Amino acid sequence: MKNFIRLLIGSGENCSDIRYASGISTPDDFIYFEYNNEKYAILSALEIDRGRSCAKNGVNVASEADFGGISRINIINTIAGKCRCNDFTVPDNFPLGLADQMRASGLTVTPEANSFYPEREFKTTDEVKAITAALRAAEAGLAKAIEVLRAGDIYKDQIIYNGQILTSEMLRAEIDSEILHHNMLPTGTICAGGIQGSQPHNAGSGPLKANAPIVMDIFPRSPATGYWGDLTRTVVKGKASDIVRRAYDAVFEAREYAKSLIKIGTYGALIHCAVEGILEKHHFFTGANEQGQFGFFHGLGHGVGLDIHEFPRLSPRSRSALKGGEVVTVEPGLYYPEWGGIRLEDLIYLTADGESVCLTAAPDFLEID
Amino acid sequence: MKNFIRLLIGSGENCSDIRYASGISTPDDFIYFEYNNEKYAILSALEIDRGRSCAKNGVNVASEADFGGISRINIINTIAGKCRCNDFTVPDNFPLGLADQMRASGLTVTPEANSFYPEREFKTTDEVKAITAALRAAEAGLAKAIEVLRAGDIYKDQIIYNGQILTSEMLRAEIDSEILHHNMLPTGTICAGGIQGSQPHNAGSGPLKANAPIVMDIFPRSPATGYWGDLTRTVVKGKASDIVRRAYDAVFEAREYAKSLIKIGTYGALIHCAVEGILEKHHFFTGANEQGQFGFFHGLGHGVGLDIHEFPRLSPRSRSALKGGEVVTVEPGLYYPEWGGIRLEDLIYLTADGESVCLTAAPDFLEID
Repeated sequence: MKNFIRLLIGSGENCSDIRYASGISTPDDFIYFEYNNEKYAILSALEIDRGRSCAKNGVNVASEADFGGISRINIINTIAGKCRCNDFTVPDNFPLGLADQMRASGLTVTPEANSFYPEREFKTTDEVKAITAALRAAEAGLAKAIEVLRAGDIYKDQIIYNGQILTSEMLRAEIDSEILHHNMLPTGTICAGGIQGSQPHNAGSGPLKANAPIVMDIFPRSPATGYWGDLTRTVVKGKASDIVRRAYDAVFEAREYAKSLIKIGTYGALIHCAVEGILEKHHFFTGANEQGQFGFFHGLGHGVGLDIHEFPRLSPRSRSALKGGEVVTVEPGLYYPEWGGIRLEDLIYLTADGESVCLTAAPDFLEID
Repeated sequence: MKNFIRLLIGSGENCSDIRYASGISTPDDFIYFEYNNEKYAILSALEIDRGRSCAKNGVNVASEADFGGISRINIINTIAGKCRCNDFTVPDNFPLGLADQMRASGLTVTPEANSFYPEREFKTTDEVKAITAALRAAEAGLAKAIEVLRAGDIYKDQIIYNGQILTSEMLRAEIDSEILHHNMLPTGTICAGGIQGSQPHNAGSGPLKANAPIVMDIFPRSPATGYWGDLTRTVVKGKASDIVRRAYDAVFEAREYAKSLIKIGTYGALIHCAVEGILEKHHFFTGANEQGQFGFFHGLGHGVGLDIHEFPRLSPRSRSALKGGEVVTVEPGLYYPEWGGIRLEDLIYLTADGESVCLTAAPDFLEID
């Protein structure tokens, strides 16, 4: 079998593969390679101390000077020379400009169309712990939001908190501050009220309405480990309308049923389609009209790890079965421009033994007095 | 002259070029192209409403369905067909796997070795406003940190705040919470005390020491605009040692002198070297020994915009002169493993007319009682 040098370039912050392989995260790009059983991270003078202190077992930390200086192509040519190998495998998203330079130097560069580290789908105990820690911070943020909403007063269709009209921005700042105090980084927390919640990725802005659903999607990351948590709840301050209550009940039933299907051998697409079936049974249909899309029009779930969205997917496009070891979200939702959105998201760990463990500890309820 | 299709793929969150060109930021990748005077962003069903609401003037928003479906290579082949052009220019970091697929389809793909949008170096009034708004949030975070340090009591070499030993993590959470309440996102705020501060990228952890320097580097991003602020101050709770005071004074003098050199026509490398000279005049030398590096061993400054580190660089490697319109940091520092680090960072806007405007409004002082 032909031997390839496996090559990565990126920062731990923008490239989860290099963080996974090396254990190192830097603000700026660095080069990492594997050849036979040797692994090397090649760091700038500014990062070498950090690299030495956090490299994974078995990863050698070298300086750019040891590999011919700061030029990326020089470093790579030096790697080829030291390994006496001109054949490189790189991730699909490897930078084209550098690959073209390598090819012009006589090296072969083969992008890997699939995952560069397929084992990232299957989590170790430490990884599950790191994900759970981030999830706990999300739950603390949610608890803070519920406290704020509970303390608020309804005046006409507004929510008054500390003498001010409560806005998405204020509620998000409360959630995110709580997350920070748990030593996690908040990232784009969604607090979308009323019809804003009918766009799944609308972060929410302006005054939040009483008696209307508020979608809170909270996904903090641990700066220490790089792992993410992911949590969504939808609540109403005051009284939910009949349609909102019925949508909530349908989404809740769909989520619980989907969780019961997280088993070794089940196909992601099947779980997604089962959820569609439950929502339709409750007369919530999916489609599009001149106003845009409505119903349930995103994937049911996704893997969570060093990326917030990673394999496996639980979506109609998914072509693989669960194997055991995955951590996935289960997050059915319903979105209608007439009244807004409902989304409920739990995080599930399917152990290698096939046990399905719900990592999420947040409570489920719709109305807040 | 041959016509090329200029092609980008990325999310607004991980690819500033596509956000700059389109005005659109999404969590997931999308495709954007320019041909002659036509500009198109091609969005998934989930993002098309968001895209329509925030696309820049002159950018057409289309759905993936209009361009042959969700497959990236199908969309690109459709673009080539509609434009009757098979020649693409892409950024240097364009994903190799997709480029190889394009080439296999008979398209030519040329990576642009330099900036894809060199005009990003030269800021409009709106861009300077967006950067300044993020900087104001950083300053509010710094003011909060100073308030906390002022309120703290010194007990032996520790700082007691609210009955607890003040740590880097606690101080960072106070800064970052303040930033969130200004509707900005904190990202990796550094609060590095004592010898941790001798590593420029050490974020800081554990108890902060009294009578020792605390480096606070604060760089929040606006989730609304995508622009960054960047601010560093170094303070001592209690009394600074003689060497720390001398290093502070040298770095302060170097920063102010460097700011006076920010003029049209000045080379970035020259400003960096001038700072080295001032630090050496004060007997602070740069080098490396078995403990690692010491002195002033990072670039003096960098452009700030949609990326926290962008062109132009003020570093020994910089090969270009300032042209007017740039926003750059000026951040000299001194780092010694024996006692820690000092870094002082202001943000300067060099107008197109050649006026140098210091955007930073944070105070400068070393000791806090």
